[in-house]
Amino acid sequence: MDPRCIPERIFNLDAGEVAVHRNAGGNIRDTLRDINILDTLVKLKEILIIHHTDCGTLHVTDEQIRARLKTYVDKDNWADITKMNFGANTNIEESVRGDLEWFRANPLVREELKQGCQGFVYDIKTGELKKVETV
Amino acid sequence: MDPRCIPERIFNLDAGEVAVHRNAGGNIRDTLRDINILDTLVKLKEILIIHHTDCGTLHVTDEQIRARLKTYVDKDNWADITKMNFGANTNIEESVRGDLEWFRANPLVREELKQGCQGFVYDIKTGELKKVETV
Repeated sequence: MDPRCIPERIFNLDAGEVAVHRNAGGNIRDTLRDINILDTLVKLKEILIIHHTDCGTLHVTDEQIRARLKTYVDKDNWADITKMNFGANTNIEESVRGDLEWFRANPLVREELKQGCQGFVYDIKTGELKKVETV
Repeated sequence: MDPRCIPERIFNLDAGEVAVHRNAGGNIRDTLRDINILDTLVKLKEILIIHHTDCGTLHVTDEQIRARLKTYVDKDNWADITKMNFGANTNIEESVRGDLEWFRANPLVREELKQGCQGFVYDIKTGELKKVETV
């Protein structure tokens, strides 16, 4: 959801060409609902997981977010904050790799779609797109 | 995440101007993590919830999605499918209204940000943006 990264502009795509989910960190875990809906409506062929360099999730930790929330959230709701996984991380390539592994191991995803899933890191400075392989 | 709706193009925005979360149905419930992260990083001022006409979530029901998933998901995981809320709906304006109410009642959101939250329906045919008020 980074304001600097407009997927259609980066990849020179026109309206109608791709379905785009955008969220903080490009986190695949928050897209399962969307993928299930879209796969029911149109049967998806490919999924590209693209995270980018200088992502906001690199500049904060889950603990910092929880501490910030606790400055205005009532104590009765702190248990909810503790349970939340904000997905802050320290390495973008590792983050993409983790998403690929999570997606391919997910029992709610079609096997063919798992095979049609690839991961990339987009460099916001150079425009380079680097494919991430799993081990 | 509709391929026809590129927010920056619709609203004539340049890279760097707004943070955009895109998901199926424009569902605010799946954005809380993102909002908490971004609000920690930059302190948000405004949130616009925008759903659009002819949204895919109007063309399918949660039960249809569950039935489709059950054609390839192992029975051991059907309980997970039953628990999932896919957010299919029948009325876009009601959908935005429900999101506004959910957001404004959420204890993990700053009060000032609740006041800075507005809801709209975007008409993909006419380009009209209609403000949705809560009662």
